[in-house]
Amino acid sequence: MRTYLDCVPCFVRQAIDSARRVSDDPAVHERLLRETLSAASRMAFDSPPPALGRLIHRRLRELTGREDPYGSAKHQANMMALSMLEDLRRRAAGTADPFAAAVRLAIAGNVIDLGVKSHLTDDEVRSVLDSALEDPLDDRAVEDLRQAAATAGDILYLADNAGEIVLDRLLIEALGPEKVTLAVKGAPIINDATREDAEAAGLTALVTVIDNGSDAPGTILELCSRSFRERFESAGLVVSKGQGNYETLSGSTAGNLFFLLKVKCGVIARDLGCDVGEMVVRRHRPVVPVARRADGGDFDRLAEAAHS
Amino acid sequence: MRTYLDCVPCFVRQAIDSARRVSDDPAVHERLLRETLSAASRMAFDSPPPALGRLIHRRLRELTGREDPYGSAKHQANMMALSMLEDLRRRAAGTADPFAAAVRLAIAGNVIDLGVKSHLTDDEVRSVLDSALEDPLDDRAVEDLRQAAATAGDILYLADNAGEIVLDRLLIEALGPEKVTLAVKGAPIINDATREDAEAAGLTALVTVIDNGSDAPGTILELCSRSFRERFESAGLVVSKGQGNYETLSGSTAGNLFFLLKVKCGVIARDLGCDVGEMVVRRHRPVVPVARRADGGDFDRLAEAAHS
Repeated sequence: MRTYLDCVPCFVRQAIDSARRVSDDPAVHERLLRETLSAASRMAFDSPPPALGRLIHRRLRELTGREDPYGSAKHQANMMALSMLEDLRRRAAGTADPFAAAVRLAIAGNVIDLGVKSHLTDDEVRSVLDSALEDPLDDRAVEDLRQAAATAGDILYLADNAGEIVLDRLLIEALGPEKVTLAVKGAPIINDATREDAEAAGLTALVTVIDNGSDAPGTILELCSRSFRERFESAGLVVSKGQGNYETLSGSTAGNLFFLLKVKCGVIARDLGCDVGEMVVRRHRPVVPVARRADGGDFDRLAEAAHS
Repeated sequence: MRTYLDCVPCFVRQAIDSARRVSDDPAVHERLLRETLSAASRMAFDSPPPALGRLIHRRLRELTGREDPYGSAKHQANMMALSMLEDLRRRAAGTADPFAAAVRLAIAGNVIDLGVKSHLTDDEVRSVLDSALEDPLDDRAVEDLRQAAATAGDILYLADNAGEIVLDRLLIEALGPEKVTLAVKGAPIINDATREDAEAAGLTALVTVIDNGSDAPGTILELCSRSFRERFESAGLVVSKGQGNYETLSGSTAGNLFFLLKVKCGVIARDLGCDVGEMVVRRHRPVVPVARRADGGDFDRLAEAAHS
């Protein structure tokens, strides 16, 4: 997905929110804001939003000297989700369609996204999970996913956030852990799940866990490791969680790919043709490549295609 | 008032909204957005927000070749307010304190601000006016204003927006038209009132109308004409309407000055210590000059003080 003009005010707000969350120093807040404005003024809007998001958060880590500024937020989200896991497992098992219930809870967990909303209360998360089993969802897409999973030889599951990854466990169990490989981010970026979170969720004992070699808040294939890209290209089925993965893979040529996400902003809602707050299961319709996508270069390289 | 970091995402959103309102050309939208980002990245944050707002809207006029892009919106707002004027006049006259009622209606009219909110329905305006006579207001400040007006030899009334200026008439009548000079903007800027709107409101027949010689969406004294500045400095009482005038004059050294406004954003609410949506009458507490304020230069000159 390209970066829409309406993404830009949101980038700017996110830069301020993140700087304040991570640092008490007004000079850091102002500097990250100014650099974000400058980078956004020159960015190539055919890059997906996480290309700039990656650079903003990378710069924030540099400015503060903190390698994992969302570390404690991620730990806290994992602990909260773990405290709810067994109850949710029982509720899913008690439904007429435990597979669909697992899909719903995994999507509902995607609300734990500190990129879109820098502060999120436990009550907000609980409320979304409480209504997840009843909220509207595209039953045919769920059925389509069920069939695709049943016939796929192997499944690559692209995790999104810490906390959420604990609830992904229910869906991974339903998909068949023996054929699932779970992919996390290669380095800390916002509250995206890394190997540490997969371990906290107990998933390293259940499935093969790999990382994608990148610190983008999404899956920018050009920035991922060669081994991850090979895994991605050869997978019988890819399950992609969250907005960042949707934004970065919706323009891909990949074949057997499903997007599972909670829609958290108006731009994504418009792009998907649905409403903010909706739970979405969507089979990817591969696109024919027409233009160079984000190359993951630095602030200046990102701007190369602008003004051309 | 300085430009707070939280003003910046709002500038960016306003630039996009205004460009879309004024032009159907996506190239214009993108160009104004990129130039706004670049200017904001370099701006001096000790300038008040209208200093950048002025440049954004000036650039939009240049890019579109339209000298008064909000002309029809201003006309429409005047017509709507005129259609309500006599009814509101009767309601004000029927209250126990017609002066306070006129203050309330003039403040409520300040909701007609297309800078803060680029689209506003007639119903939203009517709803604000309907509740204006009952909504909370600082009675002591109203009393203070009444006394100041009674003792002042002359009153300079700084108008804010078209439409709103029609309702200002009720307050100007209550203040005593014989000693009021009404100041409008020197050139079209967003939906701020110009001489044309004062005429549409019938005010040119009631009071002396001057313009401030500037196209800033507020009163940046350094950008105003010498004759306006002299009038401002010698006035026995200044009544300043709206957010833009508050933002640009709250740091001034002026003495007998009252701000009347409807609070329309969180930044102003925090600066004033009140809530969004509140009606405010506030006597200005003059500040001792400590730093150069906005010099009204171009996008580059505005950035001079940045990074210093």
